[in-house]
Amino acid sequence: MSYSKKVEARGRLIGDGTEPLICAPVVGGNFKEVLAETAAIAKLKPDLIEWRVDYFDAASDTQRVLDLAAKVRQVADDIPLIFTLRSHREGGEPVTLDDDGVAELCVAVCEANVADFIDFEMSAPPHHIEQVCAAGRENGTQSILSYHNFQETPDVEWLVAKFGNANALSGDIAKIAVMPQSLDDVLILLQATLRASREFPMPLISISMGGFGAVTRMIAWLFGSSVTFAVGERSSAPGQIAIGELVAVLEILRNSLPSA
Amino acid sequence: MSYSKKVEARGRLIGDGTEPLICAPVVGGNFKEVLAETAAIAKLKPDLIEWRVDYFDAASDTQRVLDLAAKVRQVADDIPLIFTLRSHREGGEPVTLDDDGVAELCVAVCEANVADFIDFEMSAPPHHIEQVCAAGRENGTQSILSYHNFQETPDVEWLVAKFGNANALSGDIAKIAVMPQSLDDVLILLQATLRASREFPMPLISISMGGFGAVTRMIAWLFGSSVTFAVGERSSAPGQIAIGELVAVLEILRNSLPSA
Repeated sequence: MSYSKKVEARGRLIGDGTEPLICAPVVGGNFKEVLAETAAIAKLKPDLIEWRVDYFDAASDTQRVLDLAAKVRQVADDIPLIFTLRSHREGGEPVTLDDDGVAELCVAVCEANVADFIDFEMSAPPHHIEQVCAAGRENGTQSILSYHNFQETPDVEWLVAKFGNANALSGDIAKIAVMPQSLDDVLILLQATLRASREFPMPLISISMGGFGAVTRMIAWLFGSSVTFAVGERSSAPGQIAIGELVAVLEILRNSLPSA
Repeated sequence: MSYSKKVEARGRLIGDGTEPLICAPVVGGNFKEVLAETAAIAKLKPDLIEWRVDYFDAASDTQRVLDLAAKVRQVADDIPLIFTLRSHREGGEPVTLDDDGVAELCVAVCEANVADFIDFEMSAPPHHIEQVCAAGRENGTQSILSYHNFQETPDVEWLVAKFGNANALSGDIAKIAVMPQSLDDVLILLQATLRASREFPMPLISISMGGFGAVTRMIAWLFGSSVTFAVGERSSAPGQIAIGELVAVLEILRNSLPSA
């Protein structure tokens, strides 16, 4: 049986059928670092690679970003690529682009066809979300509509509604990453994920961050989260575990589950 | 920080300070099997060994049980021993003893001082629970007051109240093992454990059984369960994982937690 929804990239199912998909972030600061990190990570064979463009020192230079994205993709070989410019307000590195600039860059990435997925925040202006999703649809780049909260975990109803927003906005995937203040919040995130995975047809990505939440990086897939983020070379968010360790835990966990 | 309460056996803290304590069951059918299994399990160095006396072919012969318990304890070396005669109504093997006989046997085990813990079911007649707890207190044998449900998982309030029963009955430890019918039930068990661990001063043991629940054998300690049961030689309940695999998962999980 499947616990989380399957994810395709350009019509091809990602991964070897085991759950969850593992995504490793690339957080290099310049051209050389980004490519070296991508190459090192590709050797670890994650199911997905996320390029965190907000770490790149030329994030505001569209042409340089597009050039590098194309090269990242080459170096990543066949591993599908997520293009993410995380905003400072949602935990990313500061960049000089304003909301308009970010939306324009994301549209350009879709049109240049240099990524398989584009992460776009639901806190962005609604017309930007529409623009980016539309550009993605036209060019086969799937949109991951995301929400991050590094302070706290909203309640179950709020979180389910937020997953619902991503669905209503016609995103291809919905992603929520929130900070727990206690272990109760970890259970709240898992409950919301389980409910949303039944209510909405799209794949979900669900993370409780930090130390208390680290366990969700191992188990949230049981409750419907299709992707977990793990450290390839360097962490991009608090609580991420090294790929090798995550793979070991997941194998044991999968073997203990009902087989049918 | 500690997630679960510490457990002592005869005034000495069990384990090396890492959470949770790991208990391996002995389910041999006769004298020879029980001792061979105990010896094999002792080599794996679990924190606790549970002798499941309902599997023993002479469970109704008090003297033979006491003799074997004393030998099990020798073979188990320094590993604290839980004496458990699980009733058929709570998932154990059928034995010829009636409720009176079980209570008498458990009192005799306490008086003979051949175990560190005695598991006694809260579904037994109240005066038997009192008798066994009193005999335990007089002889330094701690009582584990237990509830098992192999069909379903009651709701959070019911489970917290059941933990509370064990507290009100002056048990030393409260144990609940329930069967999930879905992953929602797994979260219910963890929520109830977290609440009960704050409400009651005693150590708790909390298990969601079967395939869906297997994950709780790895993570329930984060929510306040002091002990997890793992397979040494042979499983005594659905969903138990091999000790070696459990240890590997726990080490990775512990390393990912807040250090302070």
